[in-house]
Amino acid sequence: MPDSVRGLADRQGVRLVDALAENGVDLDRMPEARRSLDERRPRAYLELHIEQGPVLEAMGRSTGAVIGTYGVERHVLRFVGQAAHSGSTPIALRRDAFLAAAETALACREIARRHSTPAVGMVCTVGTVMVEPAIVTAVPGVCEIALDQRALDPATLQRALAEARDAAAQAAAANGVSVEWRHVWRIDPCRFDPRLVDLCADAVQEVTGHAPRLPSGPLHDAVEMGRIMPAVMMFAMSSNGLSHCQEEDTPEDHLEVTIEAFLRLVDKTIAAVGTQ
Amino acid sequence: MPDSVRGLADRQGVRLVDALAENGVDLDRMPEARRSLDERRPRAYLELHIEQGPVLEAMGRSTGAVIGTYGVERHVLRFVGQAAHSGSTPIALRRDAFLAAAETALACREIARRHSTPAVGMVCTVGTVMVEPAIVTAVPGVCEIALDQRALDPATLQRALAEARDAAAQAAAANGVSVEWRHVWRIDPCRFDPRLVDLCADAVQEVTGHAPRLPSGPLHDAVEMGRIMPAVMMFAMSSNGLSHCQEEDTPEDHLEVTIEAFLRLVDKTIAAVGTQ
Repeated sequence: MPDSVRGLADRQGVRLVDALAENGVDLDRMPEARRSLDERRPRAYLELHIEQGPVLEAMGRSTGAVIGTYGVERHVLRFVGQAAHSGSTPIALRRDAFLAAAETALACREIARRHSTPAVGMVCTVGTVMVEPAIVTAVPGVCEIALDQRALDPATLQRALAEARDAAAQAAAANGVSVEWRHVWRIDPCRFDPRLVDLCADAVQEVTGHAPRLPSGPLHDAVEMGRIMPAVMMFAMSSNGLSHCQEEDTPEDHLEVTIEAFLRLVDKTIAAVGTQ
Repeated sequence: MPDSVRGLADRQGVRLVDALAENGVDLDRMPEARRSLDERRPRAYLELHIEQGPVLEAMGRSTGAVIGTYGVERHVLRFVGQAAHSGSTPIALRRDAFLAAAETALACREIARRHSTPAVGMVCTVGTVMVEPAIVTAVPGVCEIALDQRALDPATLQRALAEARDAAAQAAAANGVSVEWRHVWRIDPCRFDPRLVDLCADAVQEVTGHAPRLPSGPLHDAVEMGRIMPAVMMFAMSSNGLSHCQEEDTPEDHLEVTIEAFLRLVDKTIAAVGTQ
């Protein structure tokens, strides 16, 4: 493993090995971490995290039990029509790549709505949009969008992907343009250990009087740790659902009850798995 | 006039005065051109031009009489919602600025369709699209689009603009985002001289057996010349409706009949206005 990443550097040219060394980590000794895990044979992995989303806040809850993390299907869709003068080309004779992409993006939101239940949602997001020639007086001949689809249920995710392909093909045909899909990245959904999820929900219930269960849209360390031992996460609510910015915050009163619930989960987990 | 443009330079830093001088034009003597017009008292302005659009080709015609040029209303629309993590934010809690812009762009196409007749169309075009933060894992918090609207009838153009404002406000409200309009540029529609348009159509009819009358979406010199004397244009068909690119072309047989029709228009015009 070390050899496959030894050559990496960031945009500023800082080498991975140097950045790790600065923080007291020796790349060549990293695989020993796994050996240490094997020797100590940990029985469970518990992770406390800020939600980074607006779900608990919208429910009026401080704390939640996380049932798993969404799987992700990420693609870039490239629509190609014909650039044309915005004045001289009647609507009926256009092959507008942007409007085909716009129809696809809106259809993908409907796909996400259709597959969302009150308990477990799914999401489709178009986060980047590029048009060519990008001139105010030109019908776009090319439009590229990035589509990020996430769901907790693997079959739902694959169905939503297939439906997005149909929607894009239909929008392309309706606008006289072509569409090509380029795969960017994917990861399978992860379900946390059912017994630990129950213990987590019990702990939250006992401290807060409610036990919301919710999936996580973002990925977390618990997904990787869950591959080698039972794992679960507990969420503390986020203010305004903001994440990865200065305003990301869990107000102190919500934090206190969440920490109390988490310590209770630790006790319950030790009681349940510690003596096996 | 010369003083208001004397300081201009292009993106490469070439000064307007130098570019004009290279082509034998002295900026300070340019106003004399108008004097020369006044002295010679021309009676009409006739312009032969490639269509730069697909209308005549779609009709299967070589030549057409141009009834006027579209007026233009050009704006930038800025939608502002809330950037959010694509995984953690359920569809129902999003304020997606891009989807609001996408709905608006599609609604503007419907507005153009609604106001288009078989004889005279109107067009709405979204040619540029910018989203922020433009990250594949982020719901766009900001989206800016440029909207170019064109019509031959001034009232239609104003109605289409008002309807676009309504559509944008409705899309913004439906997506929980705000929208602001920034005016970029406008010009009134121009109707060519009715008598000259009739002469033009007669000339085209006599040579080609058909006399399509069509508006011009792009602007032309004839619009400016039409402010000081009767003016009309004749269009030669474009191959594939392409303009401002290497492929822009009128095949030779279409060009020959168009030139014949244009010379006939010259004769008709001299006969009609030359002896007044």
